[in-house]
Amino acid sequence: MDLLHRGKQSVVFPNRPVIGGYASVAGKTEKEGPLGDTFDLTAEDAKLKKDSWEKAETQLQKLALGRLLQKTRLLHSDVDLIFSGDLLNQCIGSSFALRRTGIPAVGLYGACSTMAEGLMLAGAAVNAGYAERAVAMSSSHFASAERQYRFPLGYGGQRTPTSQWTVTGCGAVLIQREGRGVRLESATAGTVEDKGIKDANNMGAAMAWAACRTISAHLEDLHLAPEDYDLIVTGDLGSLGKAMVEALFARDGVRLGDRYADCGEMIFDPQRQDVHCGGSGCGCSASVLCGHLLRQMEAGVYKRLLFCGTGALLSPVSVQQKESVPAVCHAVSLRTEQ
Amino acid sequence: MDLLHRGKQSVVFPNRPVIGGYASVAGKTEKEGPLGDTFDLTAEDAKLKKDSWEKAETQLQKLALGRLLQKTRLLHSDVDLIFSGDLLNQCIGSSFALRRTGIPAVGLYGACSTMAEGLMLAGAAVNAGYAERAVAMSSSHFASAERQYRFPLGYGGQRTPTSQWTVTGCGAVLIQREGRGVRLESATAGTVEDKGIKDANNMGAAMAWAACRTISAHLEDLHLAPEDYDLIVTGDLGSLGKAMVEALFARDGVRLGDRYADCGEMIFDPQRQDVHCGGSGCGCSASVLCGHLLRQMEAGVYKRLLFCGTGALLSPVSVQQKESVPAVCHAVSLRTEQ
Repeated sequence: MDLLHRGKQSVVFPNRPVIGGYASVAGKTEKEGPLGDTFDLTAEDAKLKKDSWEKAETQLQKLALGRLLQKTRLLHSDVDLIFSGDLLNQCIGSSFALRRTGIPAVGLYGACSTMAEGLMLAGAAVNAGYAERAVAMSSSHFASAERQYRFPLGYGGQRTPTSQWTVTGCGAVLIQREGRGVRLESATAGTVEDKGIKDANNMGAAMAWAACRTISAHLEDLHLAPEDYDLIVTGDLGSLGKAMVEALFARDGVRLGDRYADCGEMIFDPQRQDVHCGGSGCGCSASVLCGHLLRQMEAGVYKRLLFCGTGALLSPVSVQQKESVPAVCHAVSLRTEQ
Repeated sequence: MDLLHRGKQSVVFPNRPVIGGYASVAGKTEKEGPLGDTFDLTAEDAKLKKDSWEKAETQLQKLALGRLLQKTRLLHSDVDLIFSGDLLNQCIGSSFALRRTGIPAVGLYGACSTMAEGLMLAGAAVNAGYAERAVAMSSSHFASAERQYRFPLGYGGQRTPTSQWTVTGCGAVLIQREGRGVRLESATAGTVEDKGIKDANNMGAAMAWAACRTISAHLEDLHLAPEDYDLIVTGDLGSLGKAMVEALFARDGVRLGDRYADCGEMIFDPQRQDVHCGGSGCGCSASVLCGHLLRQMEAGVYKRLLFCGTGALLSPVSVQQKESVPAVCHAVSLRTEQ
């Protein structure tokens, strides 16, 4: 058995698992944003006809998985493994969505890096032959996140300038051994970084350093340069975090330029939408990947893309206990058929 | 690449990853129990000299990882991947323990099934060559769990007869490609089961069905019978859940007998200790695996063991919203050198 580990923290997928399908669901604010046309389903009703925000988030996952199976003409029983997670305490968005599906389920917690974490593990499982078909899925919901992490919505608390808007959305992607399409070529698992930032409303800054560390490790481990990618895209750093990543790379003499984007900045229009520094949440990178990004890759706009999920590993309790905000970033390299 | 998937939900590890080392940490109540002598470290002080229960839980993980590295004479930089999780909201026990270790970290949420989930993923990663060495780790803490899931300890709430006692403990296990020792031969990923049990203080019952489903799937997928194992051990069903598993198998004409045990029942002595139905928590199966069970395997008492982590995927919010308790069970087959 060949060692597929490369450098310090990367792995390669020589069997090139294929993205066999993808589906995304988003809320009303997301629909009104610049990527509004790229989601498979959008919900006008923030509760999705359920009686709580948490149950609405579970419904987002059910809808995304259902749409994915519909698009790929598969049944629950055709999926060998699903990797999923969300931001809710004890990840109930995911667990409750998978009840009675009969799909072997691996629960993840990577905060907003979960989509990249799931994509990495699903790709690794399919590449190694553990699964013929595996799904990665992740969600977030603005209202369930606000009330869990911040304030009751009815309280109408003032949001700070560096805060971000949790995306109501979900993305699900199918990885399979056979077929044609966008392929996974490698991945880099992130380390837990902590630069001592204690402002829980400045998660972009807390995550920026983790993003730089993982992107740098990826390039170094696999002997690549930023120019080898048509797009390097982070999950939800927002405008401030994105600027920090650009500045950190510039300090080392690397100009990322238009080659670098952030899902949190892409999903909303800050001129029209009151989202402060941009989007965040597990559903941000998940719905942008399974909406805009994979469509752009299929259209040939991007041939090689580095998808970097970024997660702030804080909790309300850790914040109350005056802890700083650790962060992680996982990266997966996607490439169209050559 | 051969398909390593077997049957409906199992995978095999033909390269037989080796358990290169293990370490366990436990609290005072656990030290006073029947397995008290099997833990590497025990803490008299429930706060482990930290100023909160949550920080104490992080410390459990730091101590377990530190002891594992000490026993195996390795450095943080020798570990290619770590899979870890816990019960705390946003898994802060794990995330904060891994800060600044520089170990690529994959965060899991599988409730009390996390040790088996991590063992399965670490085994899969090493078997496939993604890592030379990977660690699986999981923890729980009685006081941090009580206050998060139930009542403030100072309130002195009456515990119901079917309730279990969350173990203060942590286990960490190193899986590697080379060397001699106990080996991983296969694993079965569980499905999310829900039989409609709504009593959050009866998690043993909620998890029993999931345990039966996964054990049955494992045996069927890999053409094995219970007699092929010297011990089938569930994570934390406690006395009631264990009796349910025995009854469910008996209904199908299978008598598990002494071949079946439960970590939650083993870790405490209900005659001497006021723990109602027994131990529970991520740290229960983790510390029993990394204390008693692996020692017994090394001593030749058990040659082939099926380790079945069981998790109740509830949250206080899902309980308040009158939801039932979904459960999952992941199983890993361990075998001594033949």
